[in-house]
Parts: sequence; C-alpha cells; structure tokens
Amino acid sequence: MTYDRLITDCHVAAMTEGGEPYGAIEDAAILIQDGRIAWVGPRADLPVHKAVETDSLGGRWVTPGLIDCHTHLVFGGDRSGEFERRLEGATYEEIARAGGGIVSSVRATREESEDQLYASALARLEGLKATGVTTVEIKSGYGLDHDSELKMLRVARRIGREAGVRVRTSYLGLHAVPPEHKTDRAAYVDKAVDEILPAAHAEGLVDAVDAYCEPIAFSVEEVSRLFDKAEQLGLPVKLHADQLSDGGGAALAARYHALSADHIEHTTEAGVQAMAEAGVVAVLLPGAFLMLRETQLPPVALLRRHGARMAVATDCNPGTSPVASMTAALNLACVQFRLTPEEAIAGATRHAARALGLQDEVGTIEVGKAADLAVWDITRPAELCYWLGKPLLDRRYLSGRPTT
Amino acid sequence: MTYDRLITDCHVAAMTEGGEPYGAIEDAAILIQDGRIAWVGPRADLPVHKAVETDSLGGRWVTPGLIDCHTHLVFGGDRSGEFERRLEGATYEEIARAGGGIVSSVRATREESEDQLYASALARLEGLKATGVTTVEIKSGYGLDHDSELKMLRVARRIGREAGVRVRTSYLGLHAVPPEHKTDRAAYVDKAVDEILPAAHAEGLVDAVDAYCEPIAFSVEEVSRLFDKAEQLGLPVKLHADQLSDGGGAALAARYHALSADHIEHTTEAGVQAMAEAGVVAVLLPGAFLMLRETQLPPVALLRRHGARMAVATDCNPGTSPVASMTAALNLACVQFRLTPEEAIAGATRHAARALGLQDEVGTIEVGKAADLAVWDITRPAELCYWLGKPLLDRRYLSGRPTT
Ligand SMILES: [Zn+2]
Ligand SMILES: [Zn+2]
Repeated sequence: MTYDRLITDCHVAAMTEGGEPYGAIEDAAILIQDGRIAWVGPRADLPVHKAVETDSLGGRWVTPGLIDCHTHLVFGGDRSGEFERRLEGATYEEIARAGGGIVSSVRATREESEDQLYASALARLEGLKATGVTTVEIKSGYGLDHDSELKMLRVARRIGREAGVRVRTSYLGLHAVPPEHKTDRAAYVDKAVDEILPAAHAEGLVDAVDAYCEPIAFSVEEVSRLFDKAEQLGLPVKLHADQLSDGGGAALAARYHALSADHIEHTTEAGVQAMAEAGVVAVLLPGAFLMLRETQLPPVALLRRHGARMAVATDCNPGTSPVASMTAALNLACVQFRLTPEEAIAGATRHAARALGLQDEVGTIEVGKAADLAVWDITRPAELCYWLGKPLLDRRYLSGRPTT
Repeated sequence: MTYDRLITDCHVAAMTEGGEPYGAIEDAAILIQDGRIAWVGPRADLPVHKAVETDSLGGRWVTPGLIDCHTHLVFGGDRSGEFERRLEGATYEEIARAGGGIVSSVRATREESEDQLYASALARLEGLKATGVTTVEIKSGYGLDHDSELKMLRVARRIGREAGVRVRTSYLGLHAVPPEHKTDRAAYVDKAVDEILPAAHAEGLVDAVDAYCEPIAFSVEEVSRLFDKAEQLGLPVKLHADQLSDGGGAALAARYHALSADHIEHTTEAGVQAMAEAGVVAVLLPGAFLMLRETQLPPVALLRRHGARMAVATDCNPGTSPVASMTAALNLACVQFRLTPEEAIAGATRHAARALGLQDEVGTIEVGKAADLAVWDITRPAELCYWLGKPLLDRRYLSGRPTT
C-alpha cells in the first residue's frame, strides 16, 4: 500500500492513556494518509509499504501537536504601559481612572480593523507555533458589542484558515460589562444572549460559549441564561470559574456538562467532584497565576483524587497573562502547580483536546486521528517542561503536512 | 565623512543614565564606524555623511544588545530526569542516593568532549540570542578537576570566537566539593586556588573569579583564600552570595571590591550598604527564585535606597534555573521582584556590563562603545518585560555587523 508520508527514525510520545508513560514508543515510525495517522508503532513492526515522502527525524521525539485550549489571542493594543505604571507604584484605582484595565483593551479592540487585529494576533501566535502548538482556542470578549464581537470571531476564523493552526472559537460576550452598559447590565446580558450570540452563531463563528463567572464579572444566574441559550443553539459551553473566589462556578459548569471549567483556584471539593462526575476538564492557567502573584493554588490533589482531567493553557491575554509560549505554560504548571511533566503534557494534548470537544480528532498519536504533530530536539519528554525559553521545536505537521 | 553603516527609521533606548526614561531618542539614527558607535541622536540632527550600508528599521526600537551577566551555560547532560522525579514525589535524599544533584552534572561534564559541550551550550545560547543577547558570561564549576575546569573554559572561549556573542568567562572552581574530595575538602580548595586557577589563567581562559559562598558550599575563609589569589593574578572577582542564608557573602564581596554579588536574597541592610559603597553590582536571578519556589525576595527596596546597581540575569544552569531566555528573566524580575521595566532593562544592559567590568565597552548606546545592538518589534521598551514567550527580536548587531 502507498502512503502520503512516512515519518521515521524518531521516538513517539503518543500521549495515549494507560500503557507506557507518555504512551512512549522508542524507535518508532508513523504512516500518514490523507492527513491522518494511518499507522504508528515500533519501526521494527512497520508494515510493507510505499511512501511518497519520507521524513527521517534523526532520533528526535514526536508528540501530538500541542493544543492551547484557553487563549484570548485576538485583542487590540496591549497593556504594557499599564504593566509599567503598576510596577512604578500606581494603584489599580489610578490605572482605572486613567482609562486602563479591561476597558482599554475593549476600546482598542473596537477601534482596530480586522487586518490590524489579525496582524497583532499573528505575532503572538508565532510564539505558540514556535512552541509546538497546532490547535488554539480563541475567545471573543474584548468587543462587547455586536459588531466588535463578531469582528473578533471573524479574525479568529481567518487565523484558522490562513495561519497554519487549527482554531476553535469561543464566544465570551459575558467577559465584562461594557462601559456603555455600566448602569444597565441587564440590558447588556439580554443583548449578549439574545442578539449577539445568535448572530455570531448564524454566521458560523462560534464553536463554544464561554463566560466569566465571578463576583466582579457575571453571576451564576446571568451565566445560566447564556448557557440555556447555548443549549438551544446546540453549542457546548465552558467557563472561567472560581479564579478569585469560590462562586460556585465549577458546580455550574458541571450542571451544564461544560467542556471545561478554567482557572478554578478556589474550587472546593464538592465542585471538583461535580466536575469529575460530569466529565468537565479542569483547565489550569499558570501564566495568570504567576502574573497576578496569586497564592491560592488550584486543587490539584483533589482533581487527581477524583479523577478529573487537567489541561494546561497559556490564557494569552493582555491584562493578566501576556504569555505566548506553550512550553512556558508547561514549565509554570510543573513549577508552580507541581504537575508532573506527564500530567502537564497530557494537559496540552489529550486533555486539552477534550476541553475543546476535539478528543476524536486530535490530542494523541493514534490511527484515525489528524496527523497534527510536533517534533522536538529533546532526549526525553520531560524536557518540554523543564526548560524555560530554550528553543526545542524542530518542526510541526498540520494534517500530515510540514508547516511553518 | 563616510561611515560603515547608518541605522535609521528607528527609536533608540540608549539606556544611558539620567535624562529621558530608557535614554530614549524617538525617531533616531545611529552611525557606525569600525564596529563602534560613531554618532547617535535624533534623525533630524544627523550630520552630513555617506554610509556604505543603510538599514532602515521601519520604526522599530533599538536597545543595547542584552547582556546575560550570570550563566552556567556550559554543562554536560541535563537534569530533566531529576526535575521529573522530584515532581513525582522523590525527596532530595532519594535523588542524591540515585546519583542526582550537582554531582550528576559534574559526572556528565567530565565525560563529555569539548565538541559535545559546545553543541549543547549552543542550543541553549540560541534561546539567549533569540532574546537579544550579545554578551554572555559563562562560568566553569561543573568540572571541579584540573582538566575538566579548563575544558569548560575552553568551550566558553570557543563560543566567544564562533557563536556570534561576546563571552566573558568566570572560573568557578569553588562551586561544590567534588565527590573524590568529600572527606578532604581542604585539599580541593588548595588545588582549586593554587593549581587550577593559575593554570587556567596562564592559558588566558579566565576573565574573573567566582565562588559559591554558602554554608552548603564554601566558607568566607575558603573564598577569601581564592580571592587573595585572584588579586595576586590581577583578576576581578564576583560571588554567589547569600542565596539561601545570610552568610556574610555580600560583605565579603564588598571587601574585595567584587564586580558583583549575585542572588543576595538573604543579604541584610549592612551587606547592601557595603555593596553600594564598594560599587558592587547586585545581580538578581529570578529564574532560580521561580524554579526553587523561593519566598525570600532580594532586598530590592534596600538596594534602591542605598543606590546599589541591580543587574538581571538568567543564571542558566541545569539544577536550579534551566532558563534560556533573557526576556523571560526580565519578565520574572518585574513580576516577582517588582523591578520596574526600566530597572530591569538597565539590569540587562548598563548594569550588567558593569557586573562584567565591561562598562566602557558595551551596555549603552553611546559614541565610542561597541555597536552591539538589539532591534525589537515593540512599541515601547516596557514590552520587553511584559511578554513571556512572545518573539520580539527583529535582529542583532555585534560590533556593528548584523549577526544571526
Ligand atoms: Zn481567560
Ligand atoms: Zn549561578
């Protein structure tokens, strides 16, 4: 039989569950056909075959392409000026009075054109791609009006078409109350739920619906309204939950069988148990933890004990996590949250895929899945978590094709 | 007059002292002759000139090439396996019993050839160069015998000749007591001081002498013996000081008018004052702080109050700081230590140059200095500290030449 491509002279960390740590296959080979994995196993067992292309990887390691399952990659401006003023001693209040905080990102996002937003997102995406990412989730939520939310999602779709990564979008209209609705938040929730989400969905721009559930953002009741609408539209949900306090976010996510509950530093055991039972993935965001100098660690021991799946993501965003490196997220997840390297890498592959509803498509190196692969100059998988800032990527494949 | 190169259509952060923040010159130009800066200023003031080459930078920012003034870049093996075992729950004792810890790096460094050590250091150097580094300090200290210490220093010199960076070496024989001298440390100190250092110096391999002064490493008395010898040989000294406890390291560094005292998390006000008076640069190492999950912050407020200069470095090493990104070090210095971006960048340029005794040669963009430059895709200097993992570098110049 003839295949499109043979990848050989490599070690594979298939990241399949059970079996060897990392699903490791030493001295392995992979056959690719029509963008999918047609065969993977020890090179010695390679079936008789012909291959149009053969890539000999010189003993490098191959993992599933990494999946960054929580980003706010598209936004206008940046907040480096605010970062600087804070370090110079300005208070949050002073910065808010000077027009800083999330409203400054909303203002810039509204002002910028699709081309501008695309270009700045692309520069950040370079950091993700250089660290092995082949799938990235991108949220709206800095537009906060009809046109600007759809503009953000269109930019995300364009990234998926043109930028060499698979993209999943999330509508995050309930990210913050926009300035023009300050005294009238109910009207904004109505608009986000009844008008903007359906319009974005009608244009095919929404893969999932997200919200920021926190006393400083939206209540369980408000988020429930949104999630009910998502259910009507047949869209899966996910949630920014319990980052700053235990507001019942994890339980809410479980009730709606959300794909994921993200942050969850303050989730209690009952919340963890509900998540585990409902199959909700816990998305850990160590970049925000670092940048905010948080001290409340996510409940990793509880998540392990209850068998909840843990994913790891960059949370790339201008305010609380200007992180554009997936291997940095892995390092921080291990150093700060004490994940093992195997847990962290599963969190950027198999479990991240599930956090996006893509578990049948990507996230492991298994026959039938898309051949999204990352090739690394490392001697063992743990190196992906050990280094901070060392370039480790040799190349990526997207649907079986080498990609830059 | 004809110059070798004109750099124009850029903003310059000259990092000179006093004047504008960052020594900023908006819409600037730089003239280069014989590898040195011949003129720098506002483009409008550019003198009448001819230039053999003209580089128009499209409005990008130019800083002095970054200086990583504290690294252990050359070492054999890595410790990602140990990193993993620790996260899987192994104790330090269990790891030591299994041959882990610094002795494993010593063993690997002794076993590897100069070519092997060069190749692995180069892969880490890629991370530094990609984040704008043009000068890197490299220590010995994983050889701990005559041949292996000199081998490390020869590799460092080769990096300086062949790898597109300026290199300063430090002899760090008093890094740890080698295993074969476990019961006989005095003999090792004698050998390091009386035999290895003079031999390395005679071969032209030593720019400075460093030591690890800590109860778990070497005493003030032992380090003093080494520093006395350095003084005889006319070599400047620097010191790993007060990282884990206040052992009087900063005061010792001040007594010997050291170029720098590094780490200094536990240095008290008397030590800070002594450093400031003696002109000893405080080198802050936020990567080790992160990886070790330290809680004792370096005395930044005291350093400011006493007018001590602060530098920032990666401490790139296999055990406690597997960090190979200078911008990651900047970010961590701001986030963890609350340096302002201007302080952090001064710490990776002007003050880092002084920590290496190179203050007349590099570290600012001033007439007469070497034209070591980093060009960045940023809209303000603070972005260098704000992002973690976003690729920001456009190009580097070393002695006025574009370099990869
Ligand atoms: Zn988020
Ligand atoms: Zn060190």
